[in-house]
Amino acid sequence: MERIMGEVVRVAVNGATGRMGRVLVDLLRRDRRFDLVAAITAADAQEMGAPVAPGSQLRFTHDWASVSTPDVVIDFSGPEGLQAALQYCLDSGAALVVGTTGVGDALEAGLAKAAGRLALLRSANFSLGVAVLSRLLRQAAAALAEWDLEILEAHHNRKEDAPSGTALLLGEAAAAGRGVALGERAVFSREGRTGPREPGEIGFAVIRGGDIVGEHTAMLIGQGERLELAHRATDRGIFARGAIEAAHWLAGKPPGSYDLDAMLAERSGG
Amino acid sequence: MERIMGEVVRVAVNGATGRMGRVLVDLLRRDRRFDLVAAITAADAQEMGAPVAPGSQLRFTHDWASVSTPDVVIDFSGPEGLQAALQYCLDSGAALVVGTTGVGDALEAGLAKAAGRLALLRSANFSLGVAVLSRLLRQAAAALAEWDLEILEAHHNRKEDAPSGTALLLGEAAAAGRGVALGERAVFSREGRTGPREPGEIGFAVIRGGDIVGEHTAMLIGQGERLELAHRATDRGIFARGAIEAAHWLAGKPPGSYDLDAMLAERSGG
Amino acid sequence: MERIMGEVVRVAVNGATGRMGRVLVDLLRRDRRFDLVAAITAADAQEMGAPVAPGSQLRFTHDWASVSTPDVVIDFSGPEGLQAALQYCLDSGAALVVGTTGVGDALEAGLAKAAGRLALLRSANFSLGVAVLSRLLRQAAAALAEWDLEILEAHHNRKEDAPSGTALLLGEAAAAGRGVALGERAVFSREGRTGPREPGEIGFAVIRGGDIVGEHTAMLIGQGERLELAHRATDRGIFARGAIEAAHWLAGKPPGSYDLDAMLAERSGG
Amino acid sequence: MERIMGEVVRVAVNGATGRMGRVLVDLLRRDRRFDLVAAITAADAQEMGAPVAPGSQLRFTHDWASVSTPDVVIDFSGPEGLQAALQYCLDSGAALVVGTTGVGDALEAGLAKAAGRLALLRSANFSLGVAVLSRLLRQAAAALAEWDLEILEAHHNRKEDAPSGTALLLGEAAAAGRGVALGERAVFSREGRTGPREPGEIGFAVIRGGDIVGEHTAMLIGQGERLELAHRATDRGIFARGAIEAAHWLAGKPPGSYDLDAMLAERSGG
Repeated sequence: MERIMGEVVRVAVNGATGRMGRVLVDLLRRDRRFDLVAAITAADAQEMGAPVAPGSQLRFTHDWASVSTPDVVIDFSGPEGLQAALQYCLDSGAALVVGTTGVGDALEAGLAKAAGRLALLRSANFSLGVAVLSRLLRQAAAALAEWDLEILEAHHNRKEDAPSGTALLLGEAAAAGRGVALGERAVFSREGRTGPREPGEIGFAVIRGGDIVGEHTAMLIGQGERLELAHRATDRGIFARGAIEAAHWLAGKPPGSYDLDAMLAERSGG
Repeated sequence: MERIMGEVVRVAVNGATGRMGRVLVDLLRRDRRFDLVAAITAADAQEMGAPVAPGSQLRFTHDWASVSTPDVVIDFSGPEGLQAALQYCLDSGAALVVGTTGVGDALEAGLAKAAGRLALLRSANFSLGVAVLSRLLRQAAAALAEWDLEILEAHHNRKEDAPSGTALLLGEAAAAGRGVALGERAVFSREGRTGPREPGEIGFAVIRGGDIVGEHTAMLIGQGERLELAHRATDRGIFARGAIEAAHWLAGKPPGSYDLDAMLAERSGG
Repeated sequence: MERIMGEVVRVAVNGATGRMGRVLVDLLRRDRRFDLVAAITAADAQEMGAPVAPGSQLRFTHDWASVSTPDVVIDFSGPEGLQAALQYCLDSGAALVVGTTGVGDALEAGLAKAAGRLALLRSANFSLGVAVLSRLLRQAAAALAEWDLEILEAHHNRKEDAPSGTALLLGEAAAAGRGVALGERAVFSREGRTGPREPGEIGFAVIRGGDIVGEHTAMLIGQGERLELAHRATDRGIFARGAIEAAHWLAGKPPGSYDLDAMLAERSGG
Repeated sequence: MERIMGEVVRVAVNGATGRMGRVLVDLLRRDRRFDLVAAITAADAQEMGAPVAPGSQLRFTHDWASVSTPDVVIDFSGPEGLQAALQYCLDSGAALVVGTTGVGDALEAGLAKAAGRLALLRSANFSLGVAVLSRLLRQAAAALAEWDLEILEAHHNRKEDAPSGTALLLGEAAAAGRGVALGERAVFSREGRTGPREPGEIGFAVIRGGDIVGEHTAMLIGQGERLELAHRATDRGIFARGAIEAAHWLAGKPPGSYDLDAMLAERSGG
């Protein structure tokens, strides 16, 4: 299914009545690069059969058989919904963008196998900014291998774990850049008589307060100079926007397993 | 001993061959507001009798009896040297700026008593910027009593304790502004399943790396907005400069116990 | 009209169907410290007579005569609406919080005169954080009178003027702290062969991009150290929340002209 | 002239009594990876013939004929000195690191031609951090081509031009990443009625104050998120350290024209 440059991309959203699904539907309806052809939800969803927006012709459905040949499916539905979407894409040849996380081993294996037959892109964080930051940090950690590396994150006061998954993802990127294992270098707390910092440590620091959506700063600290690479999120909508960009990029790609980094590498010519 | 506005201040440095003493002597010699009249050091100092700088008439001495009526003495000598300086000031009426820390109980009592007879100013951190930050933070913590409060500090990789003494000093200022005890509110580590942030917590976060002289940021984080009050030091000379400003301000003041905050309050008209 | 501590405050919103008015009505309905007794709008408003929210008993009105004795009126209606609100408050003794700006000379005179008979609080920016920052900056500028002072602001890419009104407000606070006129010290652009910075300048720098709600950083830069006092807004709702805090504080106050700074001074004990 | 991995690098410094030269000599003497074999200076230098440090056997010289086969020459001497160093490297096969700027057309042509016969590395800013930042920014600007791009720089109050050369270098990197010309996109001032920001602009903002060594922040600002990529210098010694790293990397390389970016690309495996 080849797509001509600049043509409108036909897209279906799976999990369309969830928190992310609603934002996706809303954004896709107003994005001229796309034609939203289906909004799929669970069979028992309250909204079943209702228009996706006041006045819209398109209605929420749970019937994949009625869905009319999308170029790409975006899935934020959960493991069960994802299973059905995967089958649909294998049958129809549509590309598949997966934001659902926490899938079991069987589905993981199914996704791995499917990548031989369809274009598949997965991510645990669809913020483009975080994807770029992760990519930059891996390089900086390699280029400045002697510099001390610290990761600071700040989130709202209701967050129940620390450090954030994204801080760990950045730590993994930094460790990969240096060819080390994060688990052997990570330091999560400094309190009391700590002694001097060990070379090679990757330190984490945590701020909690107010309604901060999410901020991450990777610091590479040398003698007399340092780099600070920071991402600030102020709107949860960025995750939906990132998934939409991924869908636009993925539509028409040959079968294979893709991630945001591949998309960014292509865009940045590197 | 009243001093006329704009007159040159006669100053003696006690502990003049120490790390801080050397910087003080160097700065005071080039500061037209001051006349450096004595550079006192321990009896067994190598530099005894040598000029304080190439070509200078003034020589390092350990003989207080030879010292010619300073308006103010700046002491960074250590407990033993401070004892002698205190006695000299009580006898001569000179004001006394004390940077020596870790004095024992007897000397503490002596200092407290002396404040009835001479102008005495003490601090554990003579950076003017930190003193101002501490003052501002106390007010902000009071004015925005519902906002979440976090303190971030960053220091070089050889620092052996955490959080820094200055971070704790800022925490005390914040707690004072809210009429609470820091010990009951401080949270020094967040790792793993932390649960949501408790209202009223004062959190600390720590960065270590490179040769960072010292950076402190107090964050007050509300809904939809926040304040960040930060101090960045890039040169250890700021502590000497702060002590010099304090000496200039203290010279000629009536007897009493002073601190940097009093100086700043007077300067800022409030 | 004295109000007993802890009693529920009766509040009316004038301009209740405007952008700020809607947010105010929404927040006040859910705030247990308040009883929303009236939502007033222009006579020709579409929403006239409709409930202020689905299921609410309270309806939009334009009839001040029907309004039942609020303790305080919050006005974001525009000059014409403010004229009516002011008359109502003079008649009833209610306090008045004014967010309307750009009022003409006659109304300005009316407001000035009214302050002798009712409690009146005005501000061009009801963010509590900005009010606190302004207060802190005035003090810091006075206490560190020799340090170089720069103000950086960042706003979204649709903003049509520079620097922002809030940046100028902060510049005024800094200038006031130093007893100088902002107009004589402000430097709005540095490009090309600028020559060295003049002592006493107050510099402004401007960032524009994306959907930044508003960020302001005042820097006081000395030798070897500096202070950065920053406010970051991520949600326009802060202006409504600030007006609500002001209304709560103002209700029951004796007649007079008040501002946010007075409120913060009282809260911070000085 | 191939060099075995881990072998000590023989290095000569040209312009050894200049500001940078002195720092280079000082650092190289204490760096075990290097053997400092010559410290060359102008014929009329006061220090001619004196030891390069108290007790050192090595003396300042202006006689290239006496210099004993370095692997690499580091030049911060000025155009005239560079001419001699270039000739020496062409004759001896030593690699050449050039920090001298402002060379005339003839010497430029000579350098270009020489790159066919020796390993030559030039830079106008030898900070490794700035080189990495420049590299990262080029990529980020390409990957996030729709985001608004702004560059903020801060320097001491004696700096006489704006924006800094390094800010412009970063602007060039960003423009290159987007395939546009900086000259057509740069906006150096925003004041008064600016109107909305034009898409594609690259804005510059300038802070001046105190003794700030140099700070640069590139901001990429999208909807609901942004990246901030910052470099902070606190010590001018970083430029010497960067030149030393470049010399270590360059020694033994085949003839060609190199820059810091090539070094970083090799180090970061990409």
